[in-house]
Amino acid sequence: MKQSLLALKTNKEAPSDADSVNARLLTQSGFVKKEMAGVYSYLPLGLRVLRKIEKIVIEEMESVGSQQVLMPALTPRKNWETTGRYGVDIAYTPSENTVLGWSHEEMVTPIAKEILRSYKNFPLSLFQIQTKFRNEPRAKSGLLRGREFIMKDAYSFHPTQEDLEEYYEKMAAAYFRVYERCGLKSYRIKSGGGDFTDAISDEFSVITPAGEDTMVFCSSCSFAQNIEVATALPPVFSQKEEVGELEKFENDRPKDIAKTASELGIPEAQILKTVVFVQENGEMLGVCIRGDLQVSSEKAERYIGGPLRSASPKELLKKGLVIGFISPVQSTTIPFVCDESVTKIVNFYTGANEEKKDYKNVNFERDFSGEVGDFSLATKGFSCPECQKELDEAPCVEVGNIFDLGSKYSEAFSLKFTDKDGKEKPVLMGCYGIGVSRLMGTVVESSHDEKGIIWHKNIAPFQVHILSLREDEEAQKLAFELEEDGYEVLFDDRNESPGKKFADADLIGIPLRIVVSKRTLEKESVELSFRATGEKEEVPLSGVARKVWDFYEGE
Amino acid sequence: MKQSLLALKTNKEAPSDADSVNARLLTQSGFVKKEMAGVYSYLPLGLRVLRKIEKIVIEEMESVGSQQVLMPALTPRKNWETTGRYGVDIAYTPSENTVLGWSHEEMVTPIAKEILRSYKNFPLSLFQIQTKFRNEPRAKSGLLRGREFIMKDAYSFHPTQEDLEEYYEKMAAAYFRVYERCGLKSYRIKSGGGDFTDAISDEFSVITPAGEDTMVFCSSCSFAQNIEVATALPPVFSQKEEVGELEKFENDRPKDIAKTASELGIPEAQILKTVVFVQENGEMLGVCIRGDLQVSSEKAERYIGGPLRSASPKELLKKGLVIGFISPVQSTTIPFVCDESVTKIVNFYTGANEEKKDYKNVNFERDFSGEVGDFSLATKGFSCPECQKELDEAPCVEVGNIFDLGSKYSEAFSLKFTDKDGKEKPVLMGCYGIGVSRLMGTVVESSHDEKGIIWHKNIAPFQVHILSLREDEEAQKLAFELEEDGYEVLFDDRNESPGKKFADADLIGIPLRIVVSKRTLEKESVELSFRATGEKEEVPLSGVARKVWDFYEGE
Repeated sequence: MKQSLLALKTNKEAPSDADSVNARLLTQSGFVKKEMAGVYSYLPLGLRVLRKIEKIVIEEMESVGSQQVLMPALTPRKNWETTGRYGVDIAYTPSENTVLGWSHEEMVTPIAKEILRSYKNFPLSLFQIQTKFRNEPRAKSGLLRGREFIMKDAYSFHPTQEDLEEYYEKMAAAYFRVYERCGLKSYRIKSGGGDFTDAISDEFSVITPAGEDTMVFCSSCSFAQNIEVATALPPVFSQKEEVGELEKFENDRPKDIAKTASELGIPEAQILKTVVFVQENGEMLGVCIRGDLQVSSEKAERYIGGPLRSASPKELLKKGLVIGFISPVQSTTIPFVCDESVTKIVNFYTGANEEKKDYKNVNFERDFSGEVGDFSLATKGFSCPECQKELDEAPCVEVGNIFDLGSKYSEAFSLKFTDKDGKEKPVLMGCYGIGVSRLMGTVVESSHDEKGIIWHKNIAPFQVHILSLREDEEAQKLAFELEEDGYEVLFDDRNESPGKKFADADLIGIPLRIVVSKRTLEKESVELSFRATGEKEEVPLSGVARKVWDFYEGE
Repeated sequence: MKQSLLALKTNKEAPSDADSVNARLLTQSGFVKKEMAGVYSYLPLGLRVLRKIEKIVIEEMESVGSQQVLMPALTPRKNWETTGRYGVDIAYTPSENTVLGWSHEEMVTPIAKEILRSYKNFPLSLFQIQTKFRNEPRAKSGLLRGREFIMKDAYSFHPTQEDLEEYYEKMAAAYFRVYERCGLKSYRIKSGGGDFTDAISDEFSVITPAGEDTMVFCSSCSFAQNIEVATALPPVFSQKEEVGELEKFENDRPKDIAKTASELGIPEAQILKTVVFVQENGEMLGVCIRGDLQVSSEKAERYIGGPLRSASPKELLKKGLVIGFISPVQSTTIPFVCDESVTKIVNFYTGANEEKKDYKNVNFERDFSGEVGDFSLATKGFSCPECQKELDEAPCVEVGNIFDLGSKYSEAFSLKFTDKDGKEKPVLMGCYGIGVSRLMGTVVESSHDEKGIIWHKNIAPFQVHILSLREDEEAQKLAFELEEDGYEVLFDDRNESPGKKFADADLIGIPLRIVVSKRTLEKESVELSFRATGEKEEVPLSGVARKVWDFYEGE
């Protein structure tokens, strides 16, 4: 396609309201236009990328036997009332009796009910690529968090838990393939299976500086978890100490653990730290942990089964707890729980719930106790629970998630089937989401440089970018030949300076570039370069087709 | 694909709430599921058809240089305020500052503004296939009138009227190709160009009994118009009469024109009919017309430039007009206009504005007058203004429309360009819509029989339907071979009776059917049949591929 005819306007300047790399680069390069917070138009280049990602998603969904459908965005209120999800904050309600679908369990379950009657009707898996609407107060980060966005949502239906789990793993494998084909390294983060939850679900995340979440992950094996709930092995702290006698002593020390450790000349790990939270009903909870570790408030919340906030100094005082000197030792005003880490330490130092008073030789069970569990925030420096290698942490973006829904929705809609034994049983469901437009944004976050986007060859808007430096005839001929070979070619025939053409090509980020100029044409050759590496080579005209083939079809 | 795995449930019974053939057949055959009035889910078979129609539309749009984009459904209120279209009844407003797009002029014009700066940036044509929302109080007729529906909307931008008109004709030609490829005969109905309007627009319509509109059309040439505004030649009425003297006489006759004509032994055409309307401001208008013709109230409204209703007997009496005896002769209480037809008749009969009193020998200009125009409803029996052949009339469904928007939207958004002469000029716009899901419904309305749908080969959900009558192995082999040849095959491997398989196949309507049964296999052959004609033939197994090829690729 001739670039002079393409509906495209690149901008030298970044848009003033871009709050992320993907918003900036996709707008600047003319792939999208922001219409309002969280709402974008896809211009021709952007839509080409989106459609390629969709095609990959469709192929991978079909590879696990899922069948494509298309459910409406305008959904009946009564379906949401059936499941108790009517009236949630993120739902737009364009009229009294309709809801703009922000998820489609409420629509797909009745559809399945028309198809599933008997155990003979399984397997059934349906997916759609459809526009979702969420009245997102924090719409931001370009395509990463939108109010209108394109989503692939799949739903599977099963007669037994084993069948569901088997399919769930097939889906997980398909998800990895989707991300890989888009050029992304993804991590599967199990968000279920923690100490205090039994919902089974997994998130797929990609490491990128724009990430709103943080994951801890193992570079050696595939282990990855959301930092807030990750379960991993804390750094080893070895001691060769005898248990000493509990001793209270005057200690005019800083309130900060690191400084205290340094002042006293003891390891941070030997300080017993206690963090106090307040529940919604006003009750308090102290969480005790090794001084070099942090408490995960998410884990504490899961333990309590509700939200927690930090206790204020006033609230602490009321319970006889002194900031900087809080400890569970001989303290009964509030309940305490203990991270596993505290059970392995001999002779802790900790406060004595009085200003400038500390205890030493504090030992678990003898001097304090509480229910033991995993309350630690697993960070970089922890070890992988699977392969014992040291973990790393990084900001990440969620690019998909899968859920074991159990019988929640099938029970709401009485979706049952008659089993082999003649009995009616509820159908079990799984659901599987990929934010398709978000994936496009994530690719840009992961793959760009200061000059522009670097598209992976599977999802680039065009495969070859031919830049004519006043050699239109020769360039047009080459474009035509490559198009005849079946490649998508963008041919920059514009009456622009070489500098502008190079800058735009860098911005747009097509993987393979061919510059047709007098300098090389004199030698019957052109300059071929790779956007990702910047690598350039002079290739004889007769060898171009082979080079392009090597890049796109070869290994 | 094995039918046993397909997410499909056909129904022997028609749904109780189906208000049209397409709603009934598409639901019964498991192509769609009605979610609420005007809102449907597309199940796998339905989505396959929809995608094929979309592909045809995309190809034809690209053939006229239009580039695909995707604009959001959630659109900013301010854009609609800019054009004065905020707050229309059909618009859903999911939040205070958003509107669900029911058309996209308000979104595409600002996009074009980013691209178009100079006369060098033309041509520009953008299209999208996107979900539209209209709070349609009369949502009905299945996919024909939805509240959520899939639409192709294209917008073109031009520096001059000539350029716009040239492109407009290219689009019109592309529209004809779209319908033809879907197996539909379409008519282009010019809705502009009437006596009292200067908006230029065309409708594309397909004849079908489910149509809400009526068109008059010429089977000899391509002439077609909406009956309400059609301009055609009334049936010829030849007279060889001398102009007589105006005469008032007692006449105790019926008030009905046909009966009067028969009683008096005169042609209906020689009776002068006067229809009286009332405007919104209460002013009245009498329209005079040849007695065998009808007045088009739409034409009268366009003349007045506002809505009209029939006058009540009371209103008529107040003006001295007596029902059944109304006439413009010597009547000055209300203004009269005259259809062209009255100017050619010698010696009309008409009432005398008194009970049982008539005039005869009434002649235009001598005895009555008024502004002359086209006020007649052109029906079956009129002649084609282009080829003089007799016109026919039929109910029809609009399947597309194209508009010359002029500078309405470009002026609202200050979309201007710098012309060759250095002057800033407003851009001229055209817009072009096809209801893609409506088109799917229209195809069903146009092509079905009492047993089910008959899909055109270009848009059938599958190309070949193989029915195994307990010969699964042989049938599977054949299905595999045809799939290898690149055909889409639905293979009915279900454990169902032959009767059920045949009934479902008729309902689903795949164009080509192959029955694999013992009876023919003994002769190394299968039975091949065509859904459209019902024609059957026994084909040797070795000749099946050729037969399928002939049907799909041959002439």
